[in-house]
Amino acid sequence: MTTQALTLDEIYQLAFNCLTKAGADQANADAVANTVMCAERDGSISHGLFRIPGYVASLQSGKVNGSADPQPEQVTAAFVRTHGQNGHAPLAIHRSVEMLAQSALQCGVAVLSLTHSHHFAALWPETEALAEQGLVGFACVSYTPMVAPCGGDKALFGTNPISFAWPRPGKAPLVFDMATAAMAMGEVQIAARDGHSVPLGTGLGPNGELTEDPKEILKGVLLPFGAHKGSAISMMVELMAGPMVGEAFSFEAGERDNNDGGPAQGGEFILAISPQLLGSDNWAEHAEGFFAKLEAMDGIRLPGQRRHKMRADFGPREVNTALLTKLYALCEK
Amino acid sequence: MTTQALTLDEIYQLAFNCLTKAGADQANADAVANTVMCAERDGSISHGLFRIPGYVASLQSGKVNGSADPQPEQVTAAFVRTHGQNGHAPLAIHRSVEMLAQSALQCGVAVLSLTHSHHFAALWPETEALAEQGLVGFACVSYTPMVAPCGGDKALFGTNPISFAWPRPGKAPLVFDMATAAMAMGEVQIAARDGHSVPLGTGLGPNGELTEDPKEILKGVLLPFGAHKGSAISMMVELMAGPMVGEAFSFEAGERDNNDGGPAQGGEFILAISPQLLGSDNWAEHAEGFFAKLEAMDGIRLPGQRRHKMRADFGPREVNTALLTKLYALCEK
Repeated sequence: MTTQALTLDEIYQLAFNCLTKAGADQANADAVANTVMCAERDGSISHGLFRIPGYVASLQSGKVNGSADPQPEQVTAAFVRTHGQNGHAPLAIHRSVEMLAQSALQCGVAVLSLTHSHHFAALWPETEALAEQGLVGFACVSYTPMVAPCGGDKALFGTNPISFAWPRPGKAPLVFDMATAAMAMGEVQIAARDGHSVPLGTGLGPNGELTEDPKEILKGVLLPFGAHKGSAISMMVELMAGPMVGEAFSFEAGERDNNDGGPAQGGEFILAISPQLLGSDNWAEHAEGFFAKLEAMDGIRLPGQRRHKMRADFGPREVNTALLTKLYALCEK
Repeated sequence: MTTQALTLDEIYQLAFNCLTKAGADQANADAVANTVMCAERDGSISHGLFRIPGYVASLQSGKVNGSADPQPEQVTAAFVRTHGQNGHAPLAIHRSVEMLAQSALQCGVAVLSLTHSHHFAALWPETEALAEQGLVGFACVSYTPMVAPCGGDKALFGTNPISFAWPRPGKAPLVFDMATAAMAMGEVQIAARDGHSVPLGTGLGPNGELTEDPKEILKGVLLPFGAHKGSAISMMVELMAGPMVGEAFSFEAGERDNNDGGPAQGGEFILAISPQLLGSDNWAEHAEGFFAKLEAMDGIRLPGQRRHKMRADFGPREVNTALLTKLYALCEK
C-alpha cells in the first residue's frame, strides 16, 4: 500500500472541493470537510477521506440535500430538536451543539433529537464538543442493517456506535467512540482492502459460519461485541436513535435507502449532562484520581488518548495513494 | 440442593421481619422487602432473599441507617437530587421516581442523582417504574472493586450494572438489567454455592489466570464483558454513578466500607426520557414493528420477557432451604 503526505489544510481543501463539485453549498461542504480533516488528523482514517466517495455519491444521486439549512429548535428548557433537512449531519450538529450545551449548563441535563439527517462520521466530534464546555456527552446513531442480533444470523441492527466523553478541564477529554458491532464496518472494509484478517467473532460469512476473512463478512453479517450483552446495547441504540427521537430503525433506513454508497437517512440522540450541577464542586479533580489509578495499571490506557496525542501533531498525514487518485478525479469531473 | 415453597406474601413478610428485627423502621423495611419479594417473584434469585443476610448485616453493624428518611429535591426543572441519608436505596428510589417521572414528562428528559445510599438490588425496579409511566429509563450504579479493567488483573471497577427499559403501553416494558462484568457477582456466588462452573472469560483466579471455577474467581477478580468495549462501558458507569452525581468510585466505596457483607455506600444515576415528547406520536406502535422483527428471528428473545412471564404467576416460589434456615434464625435472634 503506497501513501502520500498531505497537510491538514490540503486534506480539508481536497474534501471541500470534492463536496462542492458534487453540489454541496459552502456551509455544508465546510462542515463535512472539517469533520473529515479532524478524523485524518486524529488517525481515524476509516472516518476520514475514505468516506468522501460516499459523501459525494449521496450528493450526486440527490439523496442528500447539499443545501440543507438546519435550524435547531428549543422545544423545552432541556430539549433541543433539529430537523436535518436531509443534509449530511455535520452542519446540523455544529449548529445544535451550542444550544444543547447551554440547556445542559442551565438544567443539569439536556437532549438533542436530530432527525432527517445523514450521518457518516465518527461521533466523538459531538461528544468532545460538549466535553469542551465542561459537560459529559453521550451520543448514538443507528444505520442500515449490518449486524445480526446475538443468537441470529441475519442483519437487523446497524453497527450502532456509541460515544461518551468526560470533560477534563485543562486537558483533552476522556472519550470513547465505538461500534456496538464487534468491529466497525469501516474497519472491516479497510481490512478487506488491505488484505488483513479480522478476529474470529467479528462476523459470519454468507453461509452463516464464523470467519476471519473480512471479504466474506462483507458478503455476510457482522456480530455485536460482547455476545448478548453487547446485543442488548445495540438494541438500545436502535430504540434511542430511532423511535425515541422520531426516526427510523436501521432496517427501515436500509429499506428506504437508494444504495448509492453514501449514508442512509437516520436519527441521532445526543445527551449532555453537567457534572458541576449534578455532582460536587471537586468533580473534575475527583475523576483525575480515578484516571491516575487506571493509568498506573500495566496494559491500560485511557480511551481517546491516542487520538489526542496525534492531534497535537500539526504535520502532514499519510493518505492512501489509490484513494487520493480517486478523490482528485472527483474534483475534476 | 433442597428447596421449600413460599408464597409471595410469605417471602415479603420473612424479609420484612428480618429487616425490622435488625433495626429498620417500617418504611425502610417495607421498601427493601418489596424489592426482595419482586426479585423472587421474577426469578431473579440472586437479588431476592439471598441478599437479606447482607441487608441485615449492614443494619446490625450500624453502617446503614435503618431510619433513613430521604426527601427528593427538585433542583432544576429536569434535575432531581436525593440524599439517601445512608439508608438502603429502595426507599429513596421509591420516593424519587414520581418527581423524576413528572420532570421528564414535562421537559422531555430528567435525571436523578442519588447519593449517600446503599444499593444492593437489581436496577429494573427503577427503570420499569419509569417505563410504566411511558418513559424510557436508564440507570447505573457502581460498587466495590471486583472487576479488572480489560488488560489488567487487579480489581478497580465494580460489577457496575446498567439497566434500560422501553415502555410498551398495554404490555410489560422491554427491560434489560445486566452487570458490565462478564457475570454478576451474585451469579458467581450462587454458582460457587451450587458447585457449578462458569464460562471461561468470566474472571481470573488469584494467580491472574483464566478459570472456570467460581470459587477461584471469588478469590481473584472478575473481568468486564466484551473485552475493551465492555471495559469502556464499565468505566463510564464509574464516572456516571461517581463524580457525575457527586459520589464515590468503586475503589473509594471499597476503601470506606466496613466489610460487613452488606452493600457499600455509593451513588446511582437515573435518566428518564419521554419518547412522546422527543419522538413522534406513533413512537410506541413504531417500536412494536421492530420487536416483531426481532421475535420472528430464530433464537432471539426480547430481554426481560422471562421475568415478566414469571411475574404473571402469583403462586409460591421455591427457596433454598439452607438460606431459609438462616433467615428464620435472623428473625428470632
